Amino acid sequence: MIKNEWGQTVYPLVPGHEITGEVTDVGCKVKKFKVGDRVGVGCMVGSCHSCDDCNNNLENYCSGMILTYGAKYHDGTITYGGYSDIMVVDEHFIVRIPDNLPLDAAAPLLCAGITVYSPLRYYGLDKPGLHVGVVGLGGLGHVAIKFAKAMGVKVTVISTSPNKKKEAMENLGADSFLVSRDQDQLQAAMGTMDGIVDTVSAKHPLLPLLGLLKNHGKLVLLGAPEKPHELPVFPLLSGRKLVGGSGIGGMKETQEMIDFAAKHNVKPNIEVIPIDYVNSAMERLAKSDVKYRFVIDIGNTMKATS
Amino acid sequence: MIKNEWGQTVYPLVPGHEITGEVTDVGCKVKKFKVGDRVGVGCMVGSCHSCDDCNNNLENYCSGMILTYGAKYHDGTITYGGYSDIMVVDEHFIVRIPDNLPLDAAAPLLCAGITVYSPLRYYGLDKPGLHVGVVGLGGLGHVAIKFAKAMGVKVTVISTSPNKKKEAMENLGADSFLVSRDQDQLQAAMGTMDGIVDTVSAKHPLLPLLGLLKNHGKLVLLGAPEKPHELPVFPLLSGRKLVGGSGIGGMKETQEMIDFAAKHNVKPNIEVIPIDYVNSAMERLAKSDVKYRFVIDIGNTMKATS
Repeated sequence: MIKNEWGQTVYPLVPGHEITGEVTDVGCKVKKFKVGDRVGVGCMVGSCHSCDDCNNNLENYCSGMILTYGAKYHDGTITYGGYSDIMVVDEHFIVRIPDNLPLDAAAPLLCAGITVYSPLRYYGLDKPGLHVGVVGLGGLGHVAIKFAKAMGVKVTVISTSPNKKKEAMENLGADSFLVSRDQDQLQAAMGTMDGIVDTVSAKHPLLPLLGLLKNHGKLVLLGAPEKPHELPVFPLLSGRKLVGGSGIGGMKETQEMIDFAAKHNVKPNIEVIPIDYVNSAMERLAKSDVKYRFVIDIGNTMKATS
Repeated sequence: MIKNEWGQTVYPLVPGHEITGEVTDVGCKVKKFKVGDRVGVGCMVGSCHSCDDCNNNLENYCSGMILTYGAKYHDGTITYGGYSDIMVVDEHFIVRIPDNLPLDAAAPLLCAGITVYSPLRYYGLDKPGLHVGVVGLGGLGHVAIKFAKAMGVKVTVISTSPNKKKEAMENLGADSFLVSRDQDQLQAAMGTMDGIVDTVSAKHPLLPLLGLLKNHGKLVLLGAPEKPHELPVFPLLSGRKLVGGSGIGGMKETQEMIDFAAKHNVKPNIEVIPIDYVNSAMERLAKSDVKYRFVIDIGNTMKATS
């Protein structure tokens, strides 16, 4: 978005869609929040409130959903995101952050967190004793491990890099680690997983992942490659497997996710940076040089503009 | 199988996996059937009876499932199918044909029927008022229309051939017909279907089919092309859509499907032929020149061998 790589950026752009802070003022009709409340805003700040999806607490799938930044708001203005010391948001799109969840660690839950939590619930991969694979150990993947573990699920990280094994198992709590380029390891794990949460955006082969699933298993894609994946159909027929997707989550489920995270101590691993480090952080992000999310400390490092 | 195009045929081969007839004899431990009962046999005649799938009445997904013909049976012999005046089958793999269902019309239900019925149930596309698309108007597709209609579902046939419209709507009972090469028709139907049952085995684009689905809609593939499909991921994420598969059905569900067909008068359209026409029928089959299944009248045209 910053570099207009999707060709749709409207400048000036204020990025930021994993935002936490305190309420400093409320409108006269606001009912859910008061000054001083600890709150968060994620990927969206508006929707139509009248379609089937909105009526089913799935505002994230509403065709009128308004993104937190760089989108056109109801009144025709452009939305500005969280790289700011202040923002105004409709209370419907605000979640409450429980007191025991630090504001900095809570921030990445508002996109990365809900993006992995929602499909674990929707696809029924949230039951104790199930075995779920997580592909990709980045911002999404490392939170997927933590949520799945908190749900009582056995987690195997599937990665191309053997050197991530220690990190995945010792620091993030995965139960096992599978090097996807190792044919022996792959063969040994065939047919053992109830589901796989695949967070990788680059195009990659789905056949080995489908093979890792038990019959009736579910491969959930959360990353969108520019070109289509190749989908081998035979495993879908012979084992009634499916390939599904998911995109963030509705506001009701986002609050549920935050409350679950607070209760089960699910916290993203973050590196807190001052605002004047943001360009360096962007460069490191492009090299995947972060474990696993940068969080900008706006409150202490960005001077108020008014 | 007859021409060994999959490279796994063991000759002599006796094809036939949609079989109906009468019980002529039973073993001393048989409990479910007696001489004179009207019965059917489908794609399988054995399984392991001890795996999770067998324990869940999903013998069709058992890795030890034994196909009705050309497969190795428990005792090491090769199984022979329904092109025969007699066969011996374990009672577990036999279904009862209700009296009001003709034996000839019932036969194709045992593969084509259960292949479309099971995914309509499993993927929740069986509720009155839902809208389901059917791709491909052949042996499977024409039965899919009939089952879906009997479940109270609105059915749209999706086809490349405009000249099948009359047949689909007047003779088979579809509610509407969509020419998939007509961009205007496609655009008008975008986002209107809860599910699609895709019976086409040749490789074809999935993107328009995913576009026809509502959010959270399901594309069920029942045909397996030799090469992988191209799977565009963006629609899966933005609309939480999924692509799944299914293969025949378990014995319990096959009996349920037959009973449902009898109750709701679901009968495949068949052309009954004598056994000495079978080679001509095979040639016509290769040209899709049949509406929609040949059924061989073994009883009246094949001389008993003993």
